[in-house]
Amino acid sequence: MNIVDIIIKKRDGNRLSNEEISYFVKGVTDGSLPDYQIAAFLMAAFLKKMDAEETACLTMEMAQSGGMFDFSQVEGFKADKHSTGGVADTTTLILAPLVASVGVPVIKMSGRGLGFSGGTIDKLESIPGFRVNVNEEEAIAFAEESNIVLMSQTDDLTPADKKLYALRDVTGTVDSIPLIAASIMSKKIAAGADGIVLDVKCGSGAFMQELESAETLASIMVEMGRHVGRKVTAVISGMDQPLGMNIGNSLEVIEAIEVLKGNVGGDLLEVSLTLGAYMILMAGRVNSLEQGKYLLQHHIKNGMGLDKFRELLVQQGGNPVIIDDYSLLPLAPCKVTVFAQKEGYLNHMNTALIGRASLETGAGRAYKEQPLDFGAGIVMKKRLGDTVKEGDPLAEIFAASDEKCENAAKYLQQAITIGIQRQPLPPLILKTI
Amino acid sequence: MNIVDIIIKKRDGNRLSNEEISYFVKGVTDGSLPDYQIAAFLMAAFLKKMDAEETACLTMEMAQSGGMFDFSQVEGFKADKHSTGGVADTTTLILAPLVASVGVPVIKMSGRGLGFSGGTIDKLESIPGFRVNVNEEEAIAFAEESNIVLMSQTDDLTPADKKLYALRDVTGTVDSIPLIAASIMSKKIAAGADGIVLDVKCGSGAFMQELESAETLASIMVEMGRHVGRKVTAVISGMDQPLGMNIGNSLEVIEAIEVLKGNVGGDLLEVSLTLGAYMILMAGRVNSLEQGKYLLQHHIKNGMGLDKFRELLVQQGGNPVIIDDYSLLPLAPCKVTVFAQKEGYLNHMNTALIGRASLETGAGRAYKEQPLDFGAGIVMKKRLGDTVKEGDPLAEIFAASDEKCENAAKYLQQAITIGIQRQPLPPLILKTI
Repeated sequence: MNIVDIIIKKRDGNRLSNEEISYFVKGVTDGSLPDYQIAAFLMAAFLKKMDAEETACLTMEMAQSGGMFDFSQVEGFKADKHSTGGVADTTTLILAPLVASVGVPVIKMSGRGLGFSGGTIDKLESIPGFRVNVNEEEAIAFAEESNIVLMSQTDDLTPADKKLYALRDVTGTVDSIPLIAASIMSKKIAAGADGIVLDVKCGSGAFMQELESAETLASIMVEMGRHVGRKVTAVISGMDQPLGMNIGNSLEVIEAIEVLKGNVGGDLLEVSLTLGAYMILMAGRVNSLEQGKYLLQHHIKNGMGLDKFRELLVQQGGNPVIIDDYSLLPLAPCKVTVFAQKEGYLNHMNTALIGRASLETGAGRAYKEQPLDFGAGIVMKKRLGDTVKEGDPLAEIFAASDEKCENAAKYLQQAITIGIQRQPLPPLILKTI
Repeated sequence: MNIVDIIIKKRDGNRLSNEEISYFVKGVTDGSLPDYQIAAFLMAAFLKKMDAEETACLTMEMAQSGGMFDFSQVEGFKADKHSTGGVADTTTLILAPLVASVGVPVIKMSGRGLGFSGGTIDKLESIPGFRVNVNEEEAIAFAEESNIVLMSQTDDLTPADKKLYALRDVTGTVDSIPLIAASIMSKKIAAGADGIVLDVKCGSGAFMQELESAETLASIMVEMGRHVGRKVTAVISGMDQPLGMNIGNSLEVIEAIEVLKGNVGGDLLEVSLTLGAYMILMAGRVNSLEQGKYLLQHHIKNGMGLDKFRELLVQQGGNPVIIDDYSLLPLAPCKVTVFAQKEGYLNHMNTALIGRASLETGAGRAYKEQPLDFGAGIVMKKRLGDTVKEGDPLAEIFAASDEKCENAAKYLQQAITIGIQRQPLPPLILKTI
């Protein structure tokens, strides 16, 4: 087999055989293929697409390119979730303790963020002492003890995906549905859960801005997971405004704790309950989505979700006192408030621009090695559909310098549209597959 | 400007600005762009094409990526030619001395071959002592003295093309008309001739197998050359059988000398006369194609073409005695004859397979660093339309070992189709642009 022949075959729009895809992924993994041939392949695959069977094969080859985790010795149905990423989207910190607290083990590997704000791992690291590097044996021990592990992806997890992801980022081949699907599902399959709930974001702050492409991505991933014997449910949820009110690392930890304390409701709670309910539904712990949501909400009320979060912190070295004293979490010293410049209805948010504002504060990374400012970020004060008066605060910006605050403020002003006529609110849960 | 944005713009099928193309070529030339980004760009350009204006800009940027040769101090109209490459296509060795002998200077830089057989430079190197490495000052001195210089492309010529060509070869992006046109014309423009005759081969042994794509390629190149003030004529000629009878390096030198001696006619002579006539026509030396062909033919008859070839050899250190004693040229020791297995008409030659047979003898290179066997090759014994009897020799194969001869013979047998009904001969000159 010859890589140039494989590139040409895809370039000409032909279906690749499983052997050809396997040859490609093995070459990526063992380093025998030079980056320029991988890049040419990625562009050809981007433009000529891959069908469901090719994507499934690519996914499984990538999943098997490193260690395949085996959590079978942990009793019960292990549930995992993945979000394609949005702004103020911190559902994991809420649903993982809730789901674990009703007896369904959650062993979740997460990544670091690139772009708007940190990933789950970055947010956890904003908690003093929290240790995200956990190995397989430790993860098993933790899960057996507490039902919950939130850990960084191990070095050994899907090395082919690491390589391909890094190259896609610098070769203009990121926004390809088959490549995105293979990247996500290879990691989830290798991470060993029995069931996976996917949160596919759709809207101005998401990869997928149209429902149609979000549906395509969701369907491919669901199909792929089921094909290899995992239970998979995909929820398509709106990202036409930040999901929660806090954007940043420690700021999102605070909001998650507030939700677990029962102090905060709204969209972030609703999506967390929905995703969590599907996780315990597929685990057989409840019989319907409604039952699931009810049970999880009950575990907010009775404090068991918050107790589980505290147990997680203690287990992984984080200071549990932060739960009752947010001043122990980092907060950036400079603050600028963005005010409404006219009155009317908050009709539109360009959520990508709000994400961009978050990046300017230092809460996100523009490049892989960039250090994060855990205490930086934005607290939104309004949501879509709210009435605003001139001079009302729209958002508070926290950053290390006034300059960073001002840069972020410019993007925020641009991102928010106030109109004289109230617009209908976009739906929060668009579809479940 | 950002290379990822440029890749994405082309990936999405948009026109690149001159500034963007310039940024790309400069990054290729100075090594600041990594190979993987160049490869992704090439695949995007391959699949989404480049229009005439983009291709012209790419060509000029590539031409200017290294030294631009200036032969203005050599008196007269300097003519150059280029062939897109075929089998037994050794017109340069015939027309260059002929054109020079009628008083039109030919300063031609050529490349080495990759694939079927050697390039002009390889063929010249099969002549004992011949030196192909000539620098600019020497070339001027030679041209002023003899009107003829056949030299290797200098290291400084179009470094961007060298880099792109090497990457295209290993990323499945060779057969792109805009990229081929830019590669050829950037070199020809940088090489400084006043007029360029292009021989665009079309048929089973050529890059372009259909007249339509050959026409497209020819038109783009003609347009481009004229755009920058060079006279350009493109001849589309057939490559449905080897042009001459000899395939290989020293074997093609011998056939060229036989043509210059007036001993051999046929297609090789006809195409050489046509291309050469266009060169002296654009130089104003004659008033019509027919006059040009007549004059060049006259210079075969009176021996002035052969004298010029002898002068070229002496000038560049080659042993001129080879002209009268071919045994001074290398010839591979093993020989196998391929015989017709039935009687009928020679109806079809898969010329690419004949080229492949040549590669098997050692006359061509499968990879860039492969040493050539100058004495290896094939002598064809029949042409399309010939009647053959069972047992008639179709070709003689020369190689360093019987095994190589036999491997080549397999491809040759496959390449030649003998039928019971005579087929019409394909035209030799398909079109002039």
